[in-house]
Amino acid sequence: MMTLPAWKMPAYVNALLAVLGLCAVVALTVPDLDDSVRIALDWELVVIWGVYVLQLVTSALAAGSVAALRNDGAAFAVDLLAVVVPLGFLVTGTSGRDQSLFCGIWVLKLLRDSTSFRLVGKVLANEAKNLIGVMSIFGIVLFVAALAAYLIERNAQPEQFGSIPQAMWWAVVTLSTTGYGDEIPQSFAGRVLAGVVMTSGIGVFALWAGLLATGFAEEVRRQDFVRKWQLVSAVPLFQKLGATELVGIVRALKPRNLAAGAVICRKGEAGDQMYFIVEGHVSVATPNPVELGPGTFFGEMALITGEPRSATVVATSAVSLLSLHSVDFEVLSSRNPEIAEIIRRTALERRGVKPKS
Amino acid sequence: MMTLPAWKMPAYVNALLAVLGLCAVVALTVPDLDDSVRIALDWELVVIWGVYVLQLVTSALAAGSVAALRNDGAAFAVDLLAVVVPLGFLVTGTSGRDQSLFCGIWVLKLLRDSTSFRLVGKVLANEAKNLIGVMSIFGIVLFVAALAAYLIERNAQPEQFGSIPQAMWWAVVTLSTTGYGDEIPQSFAGRVLAGVVMTSGIGVFALWAGLLATGFAEEVRRQDFVRKWQLVSAVPLFQKLGATELVGIVRALKPRNLAAGAVICRKGEAGDQMYFIVEGHVSVATPNPVELGPGTFFGEMALITGEPRSATVVATSAVSLLSLHSVDFEVLSSRNPEIAEIIRRTALERRGVKPKS
Amino acid sequence: MMTLPAWKMPAYVNALLAVLGLCAVVALTVPDLDDSVRIALDWELVVIWGVYVLQLVTSALAAGSVAALRNDGAAFAVDLLAVVVPLGFLVTGTSGRDQSLFCGIWVLKLLRDSTSFRLVGKVLANEAKNLIGVMSIFGIVLFVAALAAYLIERNAQPEQFGSIPQAMWWAVVTLSTTGYGDEIPQSFAGRVLAGVVMTSGIGVFALWAGLLATGFAEEVRRQDFVRKWQLVSAVPLFQKLGATELVGIVRALKPRNLAAGAVICRKGEAGDQMYFIVEGHVSVATPNPVELGPGTFFGEMALITGEPRSATVVATSAVSLLSLHSVDFEVLSSRNPEIAEIIRRTALERRGVKPKS
Amino acid sequence: MMTLPAWKMPAYVNALLAVLGLCAVVALTVPDLDDSVRIALDWELVVIWGVYVLQLVTSALAAGSVAALRNDGAAFAVDLLAVVVPLGFLVTGTSGRDQSLFCGIWVLKLLRDSTSFRLVGKVLANEAKNLIGVMSIFGIVLFVAALAAYLIERNAQPEQFGSIPQAMWWAVVTLSTTGYGDEIPQSFAGRVLAGVVMTSGIGVFALWAGLLATGFAEEVRRQDFVRKWQLVSAVPLFQKLGATELVGIVRALKPRNLAAGAVICRKGEAGDQMYFIVEGHVSVATPNPVELGPGTFFGEMALITGEPRSATVVATSAVSLLSLHSVDFEVLSSRNPEIAEIIRRTALERRGVKPKS
Repeated sequence: MMTLPAWKMPAYVNALLAVLGLCAVVALTVPDLDDSVRIALDWELVVIWGVYVLQLVTSALAAGSVAALRNDGAAFAVDLLAVVVPLGFLVTGTSGRDQSLFCGIWVLKLLRDSTSFRLVGKVLANEAKNLIGVMSIFGIVLFVAALAAYLIERNAQPEQFGSIPQAMWWAVVTLSTTGYGDEIPQSFAGRVLAGVVMTSGIGVFALWAGLLATGFAEEVRRQDFVRKWQLVSAVPLFQKLGATELVGIVRALKPRNLAAGAVICRKGEAGDQMYFIVEGHVSVATPNPVELGPGTFFGEMALITGEPRSATVVATSAVSLLSLHSVDFEVLSSRNPEIAEIIRRTALERRGVKPKS
Repeated sequence: MMTLPAWKMPAYVNALLAVLGLCAVVALTVPDLDDSVRIALDWELVVIWGVYVLQLVTSALAAGSVAALRNDGAAFAVDLLAVVVPLGFLVTGTSGRDQSLFCGIWVLKLLRDSTSFRLVGKVLANEAKNLIGVMSIFGIVLFVAALAAYLIERNAQPEQFGSIPQAMWWAVVTLSTTGYGDEIPQSFAGRVLAGVVMTSGIGVFALWAGLLATGFAEEVRRQDFVRKWQLVSAVPLFQKLGATELVGIVRALKPRNLAAGAVICRKGEAGDQMYFIVEGHVSVATPNPVELGPGTFFGEMALITGEPRSATVVATSAVSLLSLHSVDFEVLSSRNPEIAEIIRRTALERRGVKPKS
Repeated sequence: MMTLPAWKMPAYVNALLAVLGLCAVVALTVPDLDDSVRIALDWELVVIWGVYVLQLVTSALAAGSVAALRNDGAAFAVDLLAVVVPLGFLVTGTSGRDQSLFCGIWVLKLLRDSTSFRLVGKVLANEAKNLIGVMSIFGIVLFVAALAAYLIERNAQPEQFGSIPQAMWWAVVTLSTTGYGDEIPQSFAGRVLAGVVMTSGIGVFALWAGLLATGFAEEVRRQDFVRKWQLVSAVPLFQKLGATELVGIVRALKPRNLAAGAVICRKGEAGDQMYFIVEGHVSVATPNPVELGPGTFFGEMALITGEPRSATVVATSAVSLLSLHSVDFEVLSSRNPEIAEIIRRTALERRGVKPKS
Repeated sequence: MMTLPAWKMPAYVNALLAVLGLCAVVALTVPDLDDSVRIALDWELVVIWGVYVLQLVTSALAAGSVAALRNDGAAFAVDLLAVVVPLGFLVTGTSGRDQSLFCGIWVLKLLRDSTSFRLVGKVLANEAKNLIGVMSIFGIVLFVAALAAYLIERNAQPEQFGSIPQAMWWAVVTLSTTGYGDEIPQSFAGRVLAGVVMTSGIGVFALWAGLLATGFAEEVRRQDFVRKWQLVSAVPLFQKLGATELVGIVRALKPRNLAAGAVICRKGEAGDQMYFIVEGHVSVATPNPVELGPGTFFGEMALITGEPRSATVVATSAVSLLSLHSVDFEVLSSRNPEIAEIIRRTALERRGVKPKS
């Protein structure tokens, strides 16, 4: 079952295209727009739609079979909707100004490609039970607050609090501390109630916000840990360690990505970090420059002797580093004397080499 | 002392019934409602009330004695109130439109059955001392802010700031950052005061929100831990471990519940999780499919060899799984070599078996 | 140097007195108040002032020397101010309605006696450096936002944005998301700026709220830990443990205070907690009831056998308990086999004794 | 290459100067300002500008070479801009009232010298990926909310919701719970949408606030830890400990800075802390006063015997202390018996000495 390679645009081009399209959709709703601008924006939508059609056709051809498409069904559905929905005006007979609104569907492209959105989706799924619980508390508080406000204020302000649905609008605006100011209790009892509602509102939304923020932070930290674990596993020095010791090292190391040409440390600066190279190369500007590659480390001298940096180090390619703070280096050394020994010996050798050069 | 089994509705039917009833109560307060709709909603309330009467009677008969009822006093009281309070209009002589408001009492049914509400109640009880303390700080700040605003603004705006209670209304609206905009200080001093009040308000409410959110998160995590502990204790592989080791495993495992027919992993995917079955059965789609039941595990091969999944696994009944991430698997292995050995041996056996089939 | 015992009111009476006084101060500012009510409130203030005078005199006599007073200088100063300041109208010649405002000074009494306020003060002192830093960021953002809003909106809305101080009022109302709505940017650029300001505002206030809430939570947890440590140290069973083991036990135990007559557990219930008595007595309702006192424990049977509670336990006096959850009991048992052995043996003895009775 | 020492003002003078200048800029925009005040403020700006010119010239002379300047390029650029930009009115031909606005550039001086701002910058850089992700979610939610509000409300309120950009203004004001109240949905569907938007808004901003606050707290804690580590390393008693043990001690100790003359503990008070001196001297008011210097400790007696403080201790110079709570002292003692032994022996010796004197 041979397949053609699908014509793939880089992710950021895709995102840019969708954002441009949505901006045009937004702009086209402005009533007093110049006709020339309106035509330009219309053409922009048509062009983007054309690209989406092309993309869909090539990916459909490349897949070569319905089975392959089904494998990534959600992604394909988005591509399909992005092409089909904008044609909606043909069916619904929507006139002029509103035709472009159908292109709003392209927001799905952004949603599909956003890792953060997927992360939030995962957090929502993980915490679903608790979030629904908090929402139900929110609903109950809303009902009770609206009922009370209705009973207290309906005679004084029949326009604003004449029914529970109206009182509910007040309650939701107040509970979320938005406070539009279109419905305000006037009686003393109503204002005491409002004070209680604001205070509970902040409480309820603290639960809601706390669950989301904590869940999100945990998921982010977890993914960070896994990513760092993979980086650390790639450094030969750490490969002889057991998983238990690795956990501590993974926690202490901080990943850093630098572009080619970036200065990592300068000669003469105080140094409180050493670096392990995961990917890429760096150049150490000693009298006869040394190039270090993946799996090596540098900057350990300043940590051992406490002296300023003895040389400037520059990234010669894009590098992925793991930095280790001096305090963590000491803790690491006392727990893994072997590794400390290797680092110290390397430092001595490097020192010994330099005077000769 | 023989007792009849009480006629019990499932929890979600009960919740739905109460929600429907409350929605009718809300809708009936809208002034310009069609008479036909009004009658339909009235009947809805009567029917729900009838169901509640039936429920009360059967449960009273089933209990058979006052002692049994007393055991679950609060629950019985709610059932009783849900039947008695809606009759309140008979006593108070409330006319037409307001009769339905008495059914608002049914919100108690939702409160009683909401586990989140009980959780929040527990958190409020646990943190009572601190929450009361923060409330008292809130009260003191409110008084001082209102006194200052009254002194500063009373001459300029006697309508808005003519008394401390009025200034307090401004203070509470501002402290909670609701900001209705009905009372706004106009003088320079008053605006500086408002800035200070907003900033302190966010501080005070941060304490209030922080205590609630932290307390809630801790209680949720604690209950999760206990639940997971029970699941892990049900897996034979872990039963020989001491409690200290179990704590680490319980933390690393994540519970997952899947409906029958759900695909757990697909052949050819990269795999970074292995699964322990707590309840239910799964089918491994090898050439001659294998069915695994409670206490067994699968997906370990991808973790050991790093190769893609060798088979698709589908839940044949509703299953309760515990998933273990590859990183946690390595940590677990290095701490409990015995368990790692069992898992590895099983993996090898399974591998050995497949080529023959 | 003999001293008389000072006449001391219980803390809650003191707090109540101050709250009543402040309520009178608040109420007296309402313009359309009945003369009879006004006179009653005035008398209330006079009576409270009289009590404060009495308190001051007796405590001054009791102290017997200036040295003793100096030791608790701040507290004495508050007592003095509470008596002297309300006389302020004599000096300033403030007329009628405003005389009572001087009694607002009594808020100091509440501040002095509030443990939460002291806690917040401690947190503010601990985090002073960071909080000042965040405040300075707040100030800088405020200035930049106001400058930008002034430049953008001053021509369109000279009334609202005609000077930077006016624009600053808008900026502070927007940064804190209060949003009174009295100054709203109308231009496109102004609204984009407002969006940025709201977003940064939430960011800046998150730092501010986060520092306060975290600092507060840490201080509360620390004080809780110390208090629990003292309770745990009072239980003989734990006194032979080293400090390191104690830390784990202190974390696992939860303090619970119950009034006399409270039911701690009921016969036949499922039991997932055992209890250590720190203070007070409980009665175990076995056929011939047993009374347990400080230093003993109960409820262990349900944890060991997994059976329902074998007896109801009632507090016979106010009791201070430490509860231990079954999961924590297992962890504790595996770490401290000696203690587990004592608990198990006691459980067996208690079991063995009961059948005989 | 000899260099003159640059004329350096203390940091707080620099900050004060910039703040004064900015205040003048703010005040000068007020329309109805007295001419005398206006002239005074103008002169204030000129004087500050003069100081900045002087500062720039001396630092340029002191640097002596372009290389030295380049080393601290950003700082130098700020100094240069602070001098050049205020002259902008010469080029742009801005008239009278607006000339002073160019001095707003001095806010850069505050930004450059604010450690908190650098901290926030670091947090933003660390969390950039996640913050951008959350921002993109915010953008998507904003677009969807605005599109929905536009479709729902455009016919009822063409003035407020007549285009998506207008609806976006409503959406951002509502999402951030600012709620100006200038655009409020009137239809039932619009209000339900608003409720959903408020709730999601709080969720989205919770992610945003949570990331910032957590990142900030982590960075602060990390810097605190490093600073405390350095302090602890300066105490001889702890220098023989391995890094692993040090971590626990560093966590338990709390830094405290006191001015000369401050009372650290009073004779007769209950004592629950002991102190290690990092820098400075304290005087112990025993019958013949003892002076203690860096590296020594005091207050241990109260922890060992549980008796009240036996002497008042006063700082004779500015001191930097590390305090250790009694509970942490017990944990430390059980983990490091050697250190506990030294402390106990010192306590005994000190006790033995006093009766003789």
